[in-house]
Parts: sequence; structure tokens; C-alpha cells
Amino acid sequence: MGQKMGFYKRDKIRNYSRENERHRVVIVGAGFGGLWAIKTLTRYPVDICLIDQNNYHTFFPLLYQVAAAELEPEDIAYPVRSIVRGFPNVRFLLAKVNKIDLKAQIIETDVRTVHYDFLILAIGSVTHFFNIKGAKYVYPLKTLEQAIDIRNQILTCFEKAAYEPDEERQKSLLTFVIVGGGSTGVEFAGALAELTYGHMRRDYRNLDFGKVRVILLEAAGKLLPNLPDRLGNYARERLNRVKVEVRFNSKVSEVGPGEVKLTDGSVIRTYTTVWTAGVRGEPALNSWGLPLAPNGKVAVLNTLQIPGYPNAYVAGDLAYLEEGGRPLPMVAPVALQQGVAAGENIVRQISGKPPASFHYNDQGIMAVIGRRAAVAYLFNRFGFTGFPAWIIWLGVHLFRLIGFRNRLLVLTNWAWDYIYYERVVRLILPAKPPSEKHKEES
Amino acid sequence: MGQKMGFYKRDKIRNYSRENERHRVVIVGAGFGGLWAIKTLTRYPVDICLIDQNNYHTFFPLLYQVAAAELEPEDIAYPVRSIVRGFPNVRFLLAKVNKIDLKAQIIETDVRTVHYDFLILAIGSVTHFFNIKGAKYVYPLKTLEQAIDIRNQILTCFEKAAYEPDEERQKSLLTFVIVGGGSTGVEFAGALAELTYGHMRRDYRNLDFGKVRVILLEAAGKLLPNLPDRLGNYARERLNRVKVEVRFNSKVSEVGPGEVKLTDGSVIRTYTTVWTAGVRGEPALNSWGLPLAPNGKVAVLNTLQIPGYPNAYVAGDLAYLEEGGRPLPMVAPVALQQGVAAGENIVRQISGKPPASFHYNDQGIMAVIGRRAAVAYLFNRFGFTGFPAWIIWLGVHLFRLIGFRNRLLVLTNWAWDYIYYERVVRLILPAKPPSEKHKEES
Repeated sequence: MGQKMGFYKRDKIRNYSRENERHRVVIVGAGFGGLWAIKTLTRYPVDICLIDQNNYHTFFPLLYQVAAAELEPEDIAYPVRSIVRGFPNVRFLLAKVNKIDLKAQIIETDVRTVHYDFLILAIGSVTHFFNIKGAKYVYPLKTLEQAIDIRNQILTCFEKAAYEPDEERQKSLLTFVIVGGGSTGVEFAGALAELTYGHMRRDYRNLDFGKVRVILLEAAGKLLPNLPDRLGNYARERLNRVKVEVRFNSKVSEVGPGEVKLTDGSVIRTYTTVWTAGVRGEPALNSWGLPLAPNGKVAVLNTLQIPGYPNAYVAGDLAYLEEGGRPLPMVAPVALQQGVAAGENIVRQISGKPPASFHYNDQGIMAVIGRRAAVAYLFNRFGFTGFPAWIIWLGVHLFRLIGFRNRLLVLTNWAWDYIYYERVVRLILPAKPPSEKHKEES
Repeated sequence: MGQKMGFYKRDKIRNYSRENERHRVVIVGAGFGGLWAIKTLTRYPVDICLIDQNNYHTFFPLLYQVAAAELEPEDIAYPVRSIVRGFPNVRFLLAKVNKIDLKAQIIETDVRTVHYDFLILAIGSVTHFFNIKGAKYVYPLKTLEQAIDIRNQILTCFEKAAYEPDEERQKSLLTFVIVGGGSTGVEFAGALAELTYGHMRRDYRNLDFGKVRVILLEAAGKLLPNLPDRLGNYARERLNRVKVEVRFNSKVSEVGPGEVKLTDGSVIRTYTTVWTAGVRGEPALNSWGLPLAPNGKVAVLNTLQIPGYPNAYVAGDLAYLEEGGRPLPMVAPVALQQGVAAGENIVRQISGKPPASFHYNDQGIMAVIGRRAAVAYLFNRFGFTGFPAWIIWLGVHLFRLIGFRNRLLVLTNWAWDYIYYERVVRLILPAKPPSEKHKEES
């Protein structure tokens, strides 16, 4: 659609704007949705204010590699001001949103209050714990800080295990549980198995690696539920080969200090439970009067507008929209395309045209399982596994990483890893006081 | 001295050890002193235990570049286990030392108690605040975490200043004070000036950079007191040229929320006071019964032994030793050479020879002041300034950086910076809750 809006229409808007005040578009969230909306809008004479609580964009699809000590945080983060620097009509506000008032067209933040003519809400999703008990003992994997937390926790567990005289406690320290068999869970399990069984073995020569366990718990009966069975089966087989225990029909009921309880009554002793099982909309939205769909997401019109508020759009994970009778998945390509679409619809509205419906152009889904193995499902038709899928995955992700320099650094890290079979990112940093999560209650 | 200990002597020790138990050498601290001691000792049949509270070695001479967002933390840190991996007689213990009992030859840590036959204490130094009031409001620059803190604080000040309506408060946010005109202070001031006046200008287009101030406070009347006056004068001139205000005879009496008070009664409004003015020995040493010299350091014999404890050595910043009537400076080359000497003296003792005196081989002192400018003073004779000194500095530091890969990454960052004049490391990460240091008391 971007291509169809030629110079003619852009000039029309420019003239329109000259006669009027420039419209103020506020974009909340510097994820894929927000950034691609900016990319679309910045060519038009509007004033854009981008709000995010971090001063960097996180390349979420590779977040699990930071958690597995495979990439450094800086490899997948990029300063927002560097991204928007070239656009004179974009301002950045580092702030937390406290409240959105759709009627008054006002956003209250911890820094200042911002008024908008058009809004694109692209704040993504937060971890959904499905009411399990003891969620505070769980390590979610949703933000860069959480990924660093997980990395520190894994490395600290190995350091502690190296000098732990109590064998049972040592085994618990070396047991890592991942909850959720979607693509993040599968990818993280594969990377973690490589780290623990491969690279750590050389650093902890006196440790009995027969005690190390990586367990992937999935509530349903298959991995990668969005993909054809063949690919899920391949992922399972591949994970088994790298010694990941995959357990189906396993629901967590409670997490406590040092253990995970399942609904069937069984207990796994562990200090590290990583949660990739679900996401939902920001709970604070409840009080802002937005029309909520299941999972705390915002039910939008097929134009991505919020019902009743034609100048307010939602893009990315937060938008609930069905296509072909099924809700759209919460993946980067959807967010990115919705960001573009929301931006274009605002341009259409300004130039007096009705906003257009959004249609997702599904180019495929991928997941990587360790070295040289992946699954890819392209154009809803072609399934790949193994090395070819891995090459596709690598190419696509490198291509999508924002910033040429980041791309270079990531490539360097990977090449190094590939050639020397060496994980280089193993700093426990920042060294926080020993995790409070698992302090035994006394 | 290392060269003089040939195979003959090594064999003698080996035979000695075969008849006896292998001696256990405990090294506390993975800085330059500790690592070079290991490098020396690992060739001999002793069991080595290295203890540090971090799992990485910090390349201290470039720490200020992390604080100035010039390098990423990973560029100057290297996992200890990767360093010692090749040596089967070295074990690493990640732990905090709680107490050292020289008589019982025991070290108590938070993980376990360790016995030693020989000890090398190389724990470095800690920040010395000289009894100023409000030390908690000061940002020390002594550890990797502190450097990250400073980076986050500087970037956060710019973000806040961008939206600060109160002009006085905005000016305070944009004022950065550095206390101490030694090499760390001079180097950090130069790097900070480059960051604030150069790179930040492009990211904050609407900010009045006339309000930005970088102030370097020195208690004495010259910069770089260890070097000839000519070099100190050059540094001052160079800093003035990049708009750093250098103030001599300025002693801090008190730091409060939002301000620094000097002993002459004047007040500077700032939220960022970085302290490079002094270091001292770890205060806990007081209670461990070690013979303390001024500044909380340990007064050692010229063999680096602790008086009265012939099997206990001190190397690096913590050791107080005079040469030519002046105490040895606390710099990396001294620490490194003392680590080697302490290791060799232990070998001599094991093989029945008396330990030898330590003599510092002074190869020079250097400090860099931003792009293409530095001062270098080599072999106590040759002074260099400007670009030649910068090239010497660059070469020496790259050469000394542990780990080939780190060297590559640092070089990449620098080359990028040099060619594109672009600071790439500007993530506020981990994004902590807004600094408690300067919350105005209400």
C-alpha cells in the first residue's frame, strides 16, 4: 500500500497542511509497530512524538539469545534517538505512560502530559502467568532486562553448583525448566542446551554434567502449535537429541523457592523457571476505558482503529484482530505491517479519505533449534527443517536487525561462535545481590 | 627475573613436590596482580585457587570509556573461567572474602572456607572519599557496575533536560562535575566532553548546548601531578579547547542532592558528581590484623611479603612499598609486575631459596584526552604530547587488553567511532528506577 501512495497524494497532503496546523501524531512504543509507523509517517508533514520507557528498541526475536549468553544485550538493542535522528519531524520522549484519555486525546506520562490529534498505541504485550501461584519466583523472558536476569541466574547457578557439597541441592541448581513450547520456548531450550552441555563443560571441568537437566514443559500435546505437525515433531526430535527433556500435557500449578509443581502433582526441583508460556495486554488498560478482548488485548476495527475513537489506532501485539476466523499471531511481521498500515490510515484520514482495512501478508514463521537446525514455514505452504531452514532463519534475522553496525557485531559473534564453538558472553553483569527470588523462607 | 628461572630449577621444584604434598596457593583478586601471578605460577606444580567476587576480569585502564559511553562493558571485561581454562592446576571460586586469618592460614568467604599454604592478596583498592559529607550522592568510578551507573546517569540527565521547563534545573541536569585531576579524571573529562559537546548534540537537536558544562575540580595546582609540568600544562590546554572548565585549588567539602559545595564556600548545581580523587585499601582489612600503612594499604617488605607472615604476599594497589623515597603509583604496570614477582618468590620459597626484592621497572605513564590527543611519559625520560602520544597510548592499550576477541571488538568500536564520529553505545541499560541519589528530600 505504501507504494501506491505516490507524489500526487503526498503533495495534496502538504497543501492541506499548509492551510492548517500540522497534525500531531503520538506513537506509544518503540517496538516494531511504532518504528514502522514512524517510517511511514515521517515522509508526510505531520509532527510525530514517540514515547517509550526505554531509550532503545529491542529486537525481540533474538531476545532469547541474550538469555542464553549467546549475544550481548547491545547486539539486539538500538538507541531510539539514533534511529529517529534523521527525521526532523520526530521527537522522542523517554517516559512511562500513566494514563491514556481517549476522549480528551491526552496521554499522561511521568514526565509531562502530551496531547495528540492521532494516536498509535503500540506498547506490545506483557507476560501472562495464567494465575499460577508463586509467579514472583518465575523468570519471564519478555524484556532485555529480564533476559540479562536469566543469563546472570544461569551462570550463577553453575558457579554455586561448582562448590555445592549437598548433591540434591547441586542437582536443583543444575536443573533448568522452561515453560511453554511455542517458538520462544523451543528456541530458548535449544540455545540453553548448547550453552549448558557444550560450552559450560569446558569451564567447569570438575562438575558432573550428568546432573544437568534442561526441561521444556508444554501444556498441550505438541510443540510449535501454529505450525504443521511435521515441523513440531522435527523440533521435538531435535531437542531430544541435544538432551532437552520435552514434557507434553504438563501444566504448572505453582512455583516456589527451589521447585515447580505441576497440576498432576509432580514436583521438579529447580531454581530457574523461565516462563515463555503466554502474553497478554497491559493490565493497566482496564482502567483506561479501552474495549478489551480476551487476554487483555484491545479489540480493534479491521482498520486498526479503536471502536468509537476514529483517530486512535492500535498496532502490534496489543491489537486483537481476527483474520480467516483466527486471531492474528503476536509476531514481529504482524506488528511491523500494522505499524505501516496505521500510519497510512492516518495519512488517508488527513487527506480526507476513509481508512483502509488491514490484511496480514503472511510470509512465514520460523524457529531455530541450536546450531545448524531450524524449522521454517513460508507463505503458509513451504515447510523447511534442518540446515536449509537455519540458513533462511539466519538471513532473515540478520537482514531485519536494525542498524548496520549491530548487524556486523551480531554476525561477528555468530561467526566466532560457529568457528570456535565458544560462547564469549559469560559475564555475570551487573552483579546484583544474590537473587531474592529463591531465598528459602526461614 | 622470570627468564632466569630455567628448567633446572623447575625440575628441582617438581622433585621437591613429588616427595611432598603439592602446595596450595590462594590468590585473592582477578585483577592485573592476581592474573599475572597465576601466569607465573601455573608453570609450576602447585595447586592454585583464584577467588574473586566477580566472574570477570576488568581492564581498569579503559573503565572511564564505559562511563563515557565510548565502550560497551563487555569490551573491557573478560570471563575469568575463560582465562584460566587452559590451566589444569587452577580452580576459580566466585565468592566474597569475609575474613582472612593470617595465623591460621585460612580465608573465610560467603561460599566456603579455604586453607592456603601461600597467599597472594591482590584485591586492589576502593574509592577514598576523604571524609567529605554526602558521599552517597557521589558517583565513584572504580568498578564496571559504577561505570555503567555513570553512563546511565549521564544519558538520563540529557533525556530529562530535553523536557525540563525550569531553566535552572535544566542547567543543573546538564552540568557534570569530575573531582580529581589525575589520569582517570583527565581522561574521563576528555571523553565526557566529546560525548556531550559532540555526539549528544545530534541526538538532542532542540537542546541549548550552551548550557552544558563539564567541570574538572583539582585540589592541587596542576593536572597529572605524577608527570612533568609540561605534560600537565598540555592536558589543561587541551581540555580547555574541548570546553572542559578546569578549576585548580578546588576542594569538595560536601555533596548534596543537586549540588556540590567547595571548601571556599562556592556551590555548583549538578546532579552528576563523578569521583576520581582518591583510592585507599579495603577498610575491612583493619579488623583482619594486617599491618596498615597510610591510606589503609598494607605495608609490605620489599619482597612483597607481609611482615611476620612469610607465606603471605600482597600485590598491586593494596601493597604499600616505597622506591626511591616515594610510594609506588597505583597503576596497572606496578600491579602486573608485582603479581609476577610474588609468584616467583613463592616458587623460590618452595625450592628452598630466599625471596627476592621487588623492583619496579617503570616503562612510562600515559593519559589520553579525547580524539587524537594524549600525553605519554616513557622510561622516566621521554615526554610525548598530541597525536604521537595518542598512537602510543592506543597501541599499548590494545596490546594489553586480555583476549584476542575483545581486542578485535574494541578496535571495531574505535574504528567506527573514528571514521563516523559516532558514539554507538548509548543504551540506558539496565534501566533502573530513577536514581535514588538525587531524590530531593521533602
